[in-house]
Amino acid sequence: MSSPRIVFDGAQSIVDLTHVLTPQFPLWPGSCPFEMRAVASITTGSAFYLNELRMEEHSGTHVDAPAHAAADGITVEQIPVADLIAPIAVVDISTRATSDNDALLTRADILDWESRHGHLPERCIVAMNSGWDARVATPGAFSNQDALGVQRTPGFDPEAVDFLVHERNIVAIGSDTLSIDAGRSVTYGAHLNALGAGKYGVEALANLSRIPASGATVMVGAPTHAGGSGGPARVLALF
Amino acid sequence: MSSPRIVFDGAQSIVDLTHVLTPQFPLWPGSCPFEMRAVASITTGSAFYLNELRMEEHSGTHVDAPAHAAADGITVEQIPVADLIAPIAVVDISTRATSDNDALLTRADILDWESRHGHLPERCIVAMNSGWDARVATPGAFSNQDALGVQRTPGFDPEAVDFLVHERNIVAIGSDTLSIDAGRSVTYGAHLNALGAGKYGVEALANLSRIPASGATVMVGAPTHAGGSGGPARVLALF
Repeated sequence: MSSPRIVFDGAQSIVDLTHVLTPQFPLWPGSCPFEMRAVASITTGSAFYLNELRMEEHSGTHVDAPAHAAADGITVEQIPVADLIAPIAVVDISTRATSDNDALLTRADILDWESRHGHLPERCIVAMNSGWDARVATPGAFSNQDALGVQRTPGFDPEAVDFLVHERNIVAIGSDTLSIDAGRSVTYGAHLNALGAGKYGVEALANLSRIPASGATVMVGAPTHAGGSGGPARVLALF
Repeated sequence: MSSPRIVFDGAQSIVDLTHVLTPQFPLWPGSCPFEMRAVASITTGSAFYLNELRMEEHSGTHVDAPAHAAADGITVEQIPVADLIAPIAVVDISTRATSDNDALLTRADILDWESRHGHLPERCIVAMNSGWDARVATPGAFSNQDALGVQRTPGFDPEAVDFLVHERNIVAIGSDTLSIDAGRSVTYGAHLNALGAGKYGVEALANLSRIPASGATVMVGAPTHAGGSGGPARVLALF
């Protein structure tokens, strides 16, 4: 592997882009619940406190490996480590998403970002900030299902992902919602275009408003269980 | 939180200090097994591939939060983010551990490290390299139980941990074995001295021989499930 040049010179701030995972954390409708069961406890006489965990891979702030949406895609432990440390470009569509729950991050939004911050950095992660992370503690507001059960949440326009994959150099795309696709999508074009091209996804990111649109670097602590389609990840931003 | 100064200027290499987690990965004797169950698969017609996971927190390369051994200790999601990015000092006792499975990392080993590399850096992680990671794929060799079921594995001398906690400035200690304590310990002094002082542990680290004894920085991707005693963590070293 040729190593990328990593420069965090003078970075002063660390922002946690990871939500705390609880049994109440909103999940994709129909998912197996997150459960934590005490195996031993100091208060009842054991030397140690520890738990057994049970969860679906795509719980809390998490990674989608290419294999999640592409039959020939790599699984989560195969994502190259060099792709887990990357500059992050935050594209803010939160104003539009306030009035339109189905707002899409478009190619025009990316070009607008570039007009203000310059060309997207090489091997970057492009993250959608829809402001959705503020809804995480309000029951129902994060998955935001309508009367028919359809999730009305922002996401990437598949055409914008196609642009990022073919005309820019990215390692991943990320969102502050449950999905990189808009919730009402039934064709999952953002997933297919990103994961199908070997890029990974990061979903349910927190605190994207607390990092600069340009100039931060993230470490994506993807899990390493063999053959996994993704899983909870600790994501830290430095700038 | 006062932010530490983070300088990764010119870092050229990333080394993964994380083992791949499989159902065969050695666990602490008596632990619940690691299980991965397919929930949906593209090859059987679903749009996505995903799994349900079940594991004990202390599986694979993982973090011990202070609460794992201290009734009043913080749980895993409460570890400050500033403590998750730190310089790592690798103390190599692998030569001694080759001939003595019960080898201890002592205060003298730390002073020897300092005589060659200078005073331990502020807010560092001190990691024991016993060479044990080479045993991980050999059934029985990692936990190395004797005829009485006692694990014969290297670990930190509790007195050395006491020295690190009180006379140096550390955020964590780590080991390439299943435990920061020697396997035969029944008093768990390394755990009690480190976790009892609010430091965390990182166990079953991989590839410590591939990073320099001094000069690397690690990012510890601890999980964030609320109230947890620890859990699988992605650990990356940069230098």
